[in-house]
Amino acid sequence: MSSSTTHTAIHAEVNRLKLKLQALEVEDGSEQIYVGQYLLARLEQLGVTSMFGLPGDFNLGFLDLVEDHPTIDWVGNCNELNAAYAADGFGRVKEQSIGVILTTFGVGELSATNGIAGAFSEMVPVLHIAGVPSTAQQKTKPMLHHTLGDGRYDAYMKVAEQFSVAQAYLNNPATAAVEIDHLLTECMTKARPVYLTLPTDIAYDKISSARLKIPLSGIPPPNEPEAEAFVLDKIEQLVKEADGNVVILLDACVVRHHARKETRELVSKTGFPVYAAPMGKTAINESWERFGGIYVGSISHPEIKEKIESAKLILSLGSLKSDYNSGNFTYSIPTARTIELHSSWTKVQFSDFPGIGMKDLLPKLTSRLQAYQSAALKYDVPLFHASVPQEDNDIISQAWFWPTLSKFFRPKDVIVAETGTSNFGILDTPLPDDAILLNQVFWGSIGWSVGSCLGAALAARDRGLGRVVLFVGDGSLQLTAQELSTMIRKDLKPIIFVLNNSGYTIERYIHGETRKYNDITNWKWTSLLETFGDLDGTRSKSYTTNTKEELTNLLDDPEFASASKIQLVEVVMPMHDAPRALKVQAALSGKTNAYTK
Amino acid sequence: MSSSTTHTAIHAEVNRLKLKLQALEVEDGSEQIYVGQYLLARLEQLGVTSMFGLPGDFNLGFLDLVEDHPTIDWVGNCNELNAAYAADGFGRVKEQSIGVILTTFGVGELSATNGIAGAFSEMVPVLHIAGVPSTAQQKTKPMLHHTLGDGRYDAYMKVAEQFSVAQAYLNNPATAAVEIDHLLTECMTKARPVYLTLPTDIAYDKISSARLKIPLSGIPPPNEPEAEAFVLDKIEQLVKEADGNVVILLDACVVRHHARKETRELVSKTGFPVYAAPMGKTAINESWERFGGIYVGSISHPEIKEKIESAKLILSLGSLKSDYNSGNFTYSIPTARTIELHSSWTKVQFSDFPGIGMKDLLPKLTSRLQAYQSAALKYDVPLFHASVPQEDNDIISQAWFWPTLSKFFRPKDVIVAETGTSNFGILDTPLPDDAILLNQVFWGSIGWSVGSCLGAALAARDRGLGRVVLFVGDGSLQLTAQELSTMIRKDLKPIIFVLNNSGYTIERYIHGETRKYNDITNWKWTSLLETFGDLDGTRSKSYTTNTKEELTNLLDDPEFASASKIQLVEVVMPMHDAPRALKVQAALSGKTNAYTK
Repeated sequence: MSSSTTHTAIHAEVNRLKLKLQALEVEDGSEQIYVGQYLLARLEQLGVTSMFGLPGDFNLGFLDLVEDHPTIDWVGNCNELNAAYAADGFGRVKEQSIGVILTTFGVGELSATNGIAGAFSEMVPVLHIAGVPSTAQQKTKPMLHHTLGDGRYDAYMKVAEQFSVAQAYLNNPATAAVEIDHLLTECMTKARPVYLTLPTDIAYDKISSARLKIPLSGIPPPNEPEAEAFVLDKIEQLVKEADGNVVILLDACVVRHHARKETRELVSKTGFPVYAAPMGKTAINESWERFGGIYVGSISHPEIKEKIESAKLILSLGSLKSDYNSGNFTYSIPTARTIELHSSWTKVQFSDFPGIGMKDLLPKLTSRLQAYQSAALKYDVPLFHASVPQEDNDIISQAWFWPTLSKFFRPKDVIVAETGTSNFGILDTPLPDDAILLNQVFWGSIGWSVGSCLGAALAARDRGLGRVVLFVGDGSLQLTAQELSTMIRKDLKPIIFVLNNSGYTIERYIHGETRKYNDITNWKWTSLLETFGDLDGTRSKSYTTNTKEELTNLLDDPEFASASKIQLVEVVMPMHDAPRALKVQAALSGKTNAYTK
Repeated sequence: MSSSTTHTAIHAEVNRLKLKLQALEVEDGSEQIYVGQYLLARLEQLGVTSMFGLPGDFNLGFLDLVEDHPTIDWVGNCNELNAAYAADGFGRVKEQSIGVILTTFGVGELSATNGIAGAFSEMVPVLHIAGVPSTAQQKTKPMLHHTLGDGRYDAYMKVAEQFSVAQAYLNNPATAAVEIDHLLTECMTKARPVYLTLPTDIAYDKISSARLKIPLSGIPPPNEPEAEAFVLDKIEQLVKEADGNVVILLDACVVRHHARKETRELVSKTGFPVYAAPMGKTAINESWERFGGIYVGSISHPEIKEKIESAKLILSLGSLKSDYNSGNFTYSIPTARTIELHSSWTKVQFSDFPGIGMKDLLPKLTSRLQAYQSAALKYDVPLFHASVPQEDNDIISQAWFWPTLSKFFRPKDVIVAETGTSNFGILDTPLPDDAILLNQVFWGSIGWSVGSCLGAALAARDRGLGRVVLFVGDGSLQLTAQELSTMIRKDLKPIIFVLNNSGYTIERYIHGETRKYNDITNWKWTSLLETFGDLDGTRSKSYTTNTKEELTNLLDDPEFASASKIQLVEVVMPMHDAPRALKVQAALSGKTNAYTK
């Protein structure tokens, strides 16, 4: 019954205990290093290779240490919101690592708030370091610039506390290492943002480096064996009763809590039909013969909806039932037929089992359930596919665009889809093996994708993944456009599709179809890359496509597809067109909100 | 002893009492209007003509009412931080009115946080309206998009509470009008941000319009006469003892609390030498023969410092002693020689007098002190002037640039100076009569000036002021550049000087002079306006000036100076050059922060 997952979990637990012991030991004669260096050493151990943010006069000293660090690259963003989005994108793609953003007191950190809140909501591990005034100034609270004028030096902490699972306000070198270690462990284990204030003086206080010899880990503690065995029995009993009529539904936390591998094992050894919620898309390969597509409650394609909702048992992995991830709460699956596996608890029908986490449970579940494969294979799974519709005009419709793009993708591509039409369009689009899709279905902050794409591209380069492809609407791009500049400086080569449909189309579908407030200023999209730093025009390429033919030709061009420089494609699309899923969602959503009486 | 200021204050007080009574009355048969319309009617009464922000799916219904309103224009920004800055700029220039920003739940409002916090810190009246889920949803707390996933629907309120002096969470139409009125009154009276959540359903609840007949006012209550007389005696006694050796020092709150007119009276009738702190610059006309320039503690020109610090009595009006506004706390003025007038209290030497506000006190003070004019005139005031240095090269130095620009300005120009070199350069630059300077000396958030310039330009157009001139560094502009797009769409015609000195020069002076983290990507600055919406190049003009001669020629060009279209001037300046005041300040500030050990 032992598994490598459990071994790893036990190993991580041993290290956590060692760290607790180490904190109690007296000084040991290890090398003394700056607190700032200790922090960077920990980040390096965790696989952090890029740090996002902006310089500001309370983080400049620490930035010296960052710039001098041999393996952590200071990215230097255009603004802090974009930097937070970039840290989010890095945290999503560089799995088992974390995204890191460094800002300055007040002005800098507050600008990052929405980006950090998004990482909280969507469960992305991000460390936010704010460079703050010295410990002496924190005590006397002078009327420094970036303060509120009333001595409330804790106001920004109160903001950060709303959107982080742990905080460390360093003010004593003696405890700094322990606090940093605790913070980073919380960040990884809970896959959510944590917040660290680093006073200018503390960054340069010297401490022992002894703890660095014991690695940190985000792997959750092993499940309690007796309770786990009980849960396994329960689940097996239900699977047995279902006589193989079981479907698996994958969602956000499979990805966020790094259970892709264990999930793949379960899926392949049991043969249960498998589907994904929008936030679970690309949790496993979509070419898998038993993968049936995307389930979004009543927004799903009818045949997918029927398959899932008629199953005798639903094995739900890592679910997050937000409105846009569940077809506006239209799952039609009774609790009595549902088993939910989460990062740190399990729910079987109506019973909660706290502390029984998915990552450790899955391998044992696979061992138990593989016996049901032959029963499962009696149930067929219609192929998840998209076909390009025959349309009698040359307009680039949403219905034509997404299946056409489906064929453009390659294995290992990293695809970033902005909230809005892109987010919905990508749902019905099958993606190739080992592709990674980034979306922000739950938080839904427009502009996110541009910053996130920057972080994703840096992580993808690190991991040796494929091309990075961004889909963003004209309205959304305007919020965060300047971060294209950082992509150019960092020599990244994403392909950026700008869906130019003259404004906020998703909102037109929700309310105000012809209202001026959903209009935006039209930009010269194809000048953006040159303006933002490709001064001589040699490092980028930009295109406008007005017709199906133009776009098809471009996609077929091997030079374009090779992504050898950063490229931007303006795709001109009709203002009042939208992907199928968006139309249905917007109608539901608009109804709930009841804007007028 | 009566004054028109007191009469206005009493009138305002009467209206406040009427409103209190009205709230207690039963329904009166007045016209029923939507809560959203009531809010807009109040804003119209307060002189609000522009509303900033972005559409989002919890504010679309209210936006219908905004778009249909005859006198309030929906601006529609590129992102919420820029919108908050714009509301700040509007609030600064449209005196006696307020800036207004409308955002959506979570994602929108949080992006505005830094901009709102800046308005709090710098005391600018801004109303932040967040469109939020319906009252029904607020109760059941479903896992809607833009939420945190844990049911904390109050998290964003907790953020807003840190940076606003009053909040109204509308959830009952019966009290909505009273709550709105209270909120707006607080905003105006305290000259600081307030926060309003407007649920989708409440916006369309019907209420009585009766209260609209009683106007709101931001004029503070009249001072208590007996205490006021006591204070006047005290002050007069000290002035008498000083035998005319009195100087007046103007600061931020003269402007923020609309005491320009009363101040002008005091200054002209007493003849006391008058100086301004950086945040009080343009509180009175700088051509006034008794105006001596800018006082910033030990950063001041030595002759100014000497004049002020040797006076027997300092009459300080509306002071805000933050680090950058006071030369890093280097005022050398003993409390025993200081009288401070503030918006709602007075301090005479060591005695505080709560409730004795400046606006009501000033006219009476002028009556008392005009008798000391002849004594005051014995003390000469060296003219505040700037001379263009003779330099033997054609490089555009900071020392040459600012006095050269001084001659370019015209009366009634609105000048916006970004944090960084511009903010310091403008200090030593005399400005013409009725010019208005906007700076953010206390909060100091880079990028602020671009959004603020948009709001300032709209308010300036409203008030019939002159040209709008923005000074922004290349580094700062990158944070918020896209808002130029909104200026183009709104047909505004600012002159934008982009000081291209290859990165964050202010930070190089503080720390990390040659560090890469102070570098930025160089942009094609002269393409920005075309890229951001002047698609055919007819609505804007852009220039690069590399030499003194090029810049001089441009400034002398009447077509350029007429500002008949939006114009951007890239001014190429040396990376390691800075205005005098910045060099001194940065040295002091870097020392306080002690970045390394």
